[in-house]
Amino acid sequence: MNILLTGFEPFGVEPINPSWEVARALHGERIAGHTVQARRLPTSFAGAPPALAEALAELQPRLVLALGQASGRSEVSIERVAINLIDARIADNDGARPQDQPVLAGAPAAWFSTLPVKAMRDALRAAGHPAGLSLSAGAFVCNQVFFALQQHLAGSGVRSGFAHLPALPEQAARSQPAVPSMGLSGQIDAIRIALGVALLGEDSGRPDEGAPTS
Amino acid sequence: MNILLTGFEPFGVEPINPSWEVARALHGERIAGHTVQARRLPTSFAGAPPALAEALAELQPRLVLALGQASGRSEVSIERVAINLIDARIADNDGARPQDQPVLAGAPAAWFSTLPVKAMRDALRAAGHPAGLSLSAGAFVCNQVFFALQQHLAGSGVRSGFAHLPALPEQAARSQPAVPSMGLSGQIDAIRIALGVALLGEDSGRPDEGAPTS
Amino acid sequence: MNILLTGFEPFGVEPINPSWEVARALHGERIAGHTVQARRLPTSFAGAPPALAEALAELQPRLVLALGQASGRSEVSIERVAINLIDARIADNDGARPQDQPVLAGAPAAWFSTLPVKAMRDALRAAGHPAGLSLSAGAFVCNQVFFALQQHLAGSGVRSGFAHLPALPEQAARSQPAVPSMGLSGQIDAIRIALGVALLGEDSGRPDEGAPTS
Amino acid sequence: MNILLTGFEPFGVEPINPSWEVARALHGERIAGHTVQARRLPTSFAGAPPALAEALAELQPRLVLALGQASGRSEVSIERVAINLIDARIADNDGARPQDQPVLAGAPAAWFSTLPVKAMRDALRAAGHPAGLSLSAGAFVCNQVFFALQQHLAGSGVRSGFAHLPALPEQAARSQPAVPSMGLSGQIDAIRIALGVALLGEDSGRPDEGAPTS
Repeated sequence: MNILLTGFEPFGVEPINPSWEVARALHGERIAGHTVQARRLPTSFAGAPPALAEALAELQPRLVLALGQASGRSEVSIERVAINLIDARIADNDGARPQDQPVLAGAPAAWFSTLPVKAMRDALRAAGHPAGLSLSAGAFVCNQVFFALQQHLAGSGVRSGFAHLPALPEQAARSQPAVPSMGLSGQIDAIRIALGVALLGEDSGRPDEGAPTS
Repeated sequence: MNILLTGFEPFGVEPINPSWEVARALHGERIAGHTVQARRLPTSFAGAPPALAEALAELQPRLVLALGQASGRSEVSIERVAINLIDARIADNDGARPQDQPVLAGAPAAWFSTLPVKAMRDALRAAGHPAGLSLSAGAFVCNQVFFALQQHLAGSGVRSGFAHLPALPEQAARSQPAVPSMGLSGQIDAIRIALGVALLGEDSGRPDEGAPTS
Repeated sequence: MNILLTGFEPFGVEPINPSWEVARALHGERIAGHTVQARRLPTSFAGAPPALAEALAELQPRLVLALGQASGRSEVSIERVAINLIDARIADNDGARPQDQPVLAGAPAAWFSTLPVKAMRDALRAAGHPAGLSLSAGAFVCNQVFFALQQHLAGSGVRSGFAHLPALPEQAARSQPAVPSMGLSGQIDAIRIALGVALLGEDSGRPDEGAPTS
Repeated sequence: MNILLTGFEPFGVEPINPSWEVARALHGERIAGHTVQARRLPTSFAGAPPALAEALAELQPRLVLALGQASGRSEVSIERVAINLIDARIADNDGARPQDQPVLAGAPAAWFSTLPVKAMRDALRAAGHPAGLSLSAGAFVCNQVFFALQQHLAGSGVRSGFAHLPALPEQAARSQPAVPSMGLSGQIDAIRIALGVALLGEDSGRPDEGAPTS
């Protein structure tokens, strides 16, 4: 079966986005009998949700991990919760800057990740990759995609979630002031491990009773 | 009518908590015809929600602002969303350290603040007080109280929310490594302004359609 | 006798500079029988050293403390060493941006503070003011003034040094991203205490044998 | 001729030190006709200077770069100045914690790096490695070695200096709170480039007139 691994196109003037570099590097790999299918999403409030929906419909994945970049973070940052809020401080790649809007009107205020987030974090650390959990994916396109993903798969039994990646060294080399970075090979290896754990691990970090059953 | 303003007792070995110092300093003040009623909550997963419920029942407030301390933050940090998750990395004042539990089983995954968070932030900044919005109140007792508060008042028409306060200078003077701080008089003035705006301002920062109507 | 306390004029587009606000607030105060004389220095590589030299000649002070602003620092930051290097990343108030030049050709590579820096830090902390020591005053006008001051007074027996101050709350309220701040009354009280200790305290933080005797 | 490249043994409970991992990985490499000679220094105030002196005497190097670890920094941090101060907040590997002492009594207050620090930084960035300049190497064993090195080679015509390296990913994976890291292969490549520039580049970042001529 398929594993859907999404990344974003480069944002703004950046020529590269680690989330897509990692996703495409893992495209076609077999993990525990499943095949990674990488899809690139536009960094666009209007464009990202339909592109995600299309990929979900096409691939009928057993597992979904959406990736994004979070400049300033120093580790693979596994998100725990997506909120039903869009509030852009800067424009997306279409020049849109929506503020104080829901991702989806009438939907719950939030969705938790259905991935085994603590088992993933622990496995990454054990393999020597800096990793942590995060309680906020922001209110930009990353959070929107994460929310739309969890909404789409709610009740399906298909596990899904989101992870933010640090800047690549080449991005940090151009950045003033300095930002932390993580090499591409390390990021790829970390996400490969995370997918393996997500397929097999027990769900250890989600308050099962806390999510609305809608 | 009453304005309920809660603060927490000191946490751990700290002899003081800015959230309670601010609340008690404003106790009894009249703001736009309403009276501030300060109540101190225990920094305890078991004790805080009943103490909050008791205060709400007793005072029948028109407005509620819960305060907590967030060492490391440099500004009055107005929280936007409470999540239905408890995950303590350190023990509370009772020695309890619950992990990966819901605040309330069966409740929504999150509740948004019903305060005019952006108007409050803008008024604080205009008055010369560092202020910002936050998308995560953590997963400790602060978030638990915030979630319980929003759950309790959902649909009531009573506005409520949460703000994190920086360390006091005297706390920062004892802290290694250094943490930002904000003087007590500035914190008190900032929360007085915030309450005034919360009473009068328009609700500008909440995705109204995004919250579950339960 | 006189205590010379210098501050800088506002830098760039900022309307205010805490170093001058603190200095002028203490102007005329009597501390242990001495009188604080505040002088404002231009934030200018060309203008600051002559203004400092003029104040030293006029006042013949027994103690000198030069103050500057260091946005981003959260505490009163007592500098230990001035280096003989100017390397401006941004322009001063005259539009000058000298790079990789000595403060004074032929002078030593550095001068240590001759103030009792650890006693000052400890006294500030004991009074509830966040304070720390710093090993770099940068390579902009602050370090230039600090170096020129120490060079001027070398061998004179007059104690002198430099302290960086955090942003004021009103500056932090205008700053994005957030920076730490410290209230003006706290800054004034801290510098008053620091001057008292500098007059009386033992010199505890300088490697006496390490400074060149020129 | 020889290039001396020093690293430190692991510090405290850490099983590894990136400075030595990088140095030993480059041991024996030929760069622009010269041979890298790696030497491991003890993280000890008593032991490091004699070990450095011995290596200098043995190898008679044409270029010296000393490496150390600076947990918390995110980039290769090329130091500009060593100060004549030892002030240890924590104990070295011998349990010694000297405070407020000169590195060398009677020596200058500081020595500048004699490496082309800006050309090195620019070359690293151009190659995609995060890099920056630093104005403080601290007051622990790293600064002591840097000072002793510059003192030893003053007037010799042999270029020398110091660079701090970020934590390795495996160190960051064990660290709470999170620290930035840089992969070992990137660190090795960056130092190889830095050595090449140091051999050939023009000296662009030192105030030649500012250093004492002793």
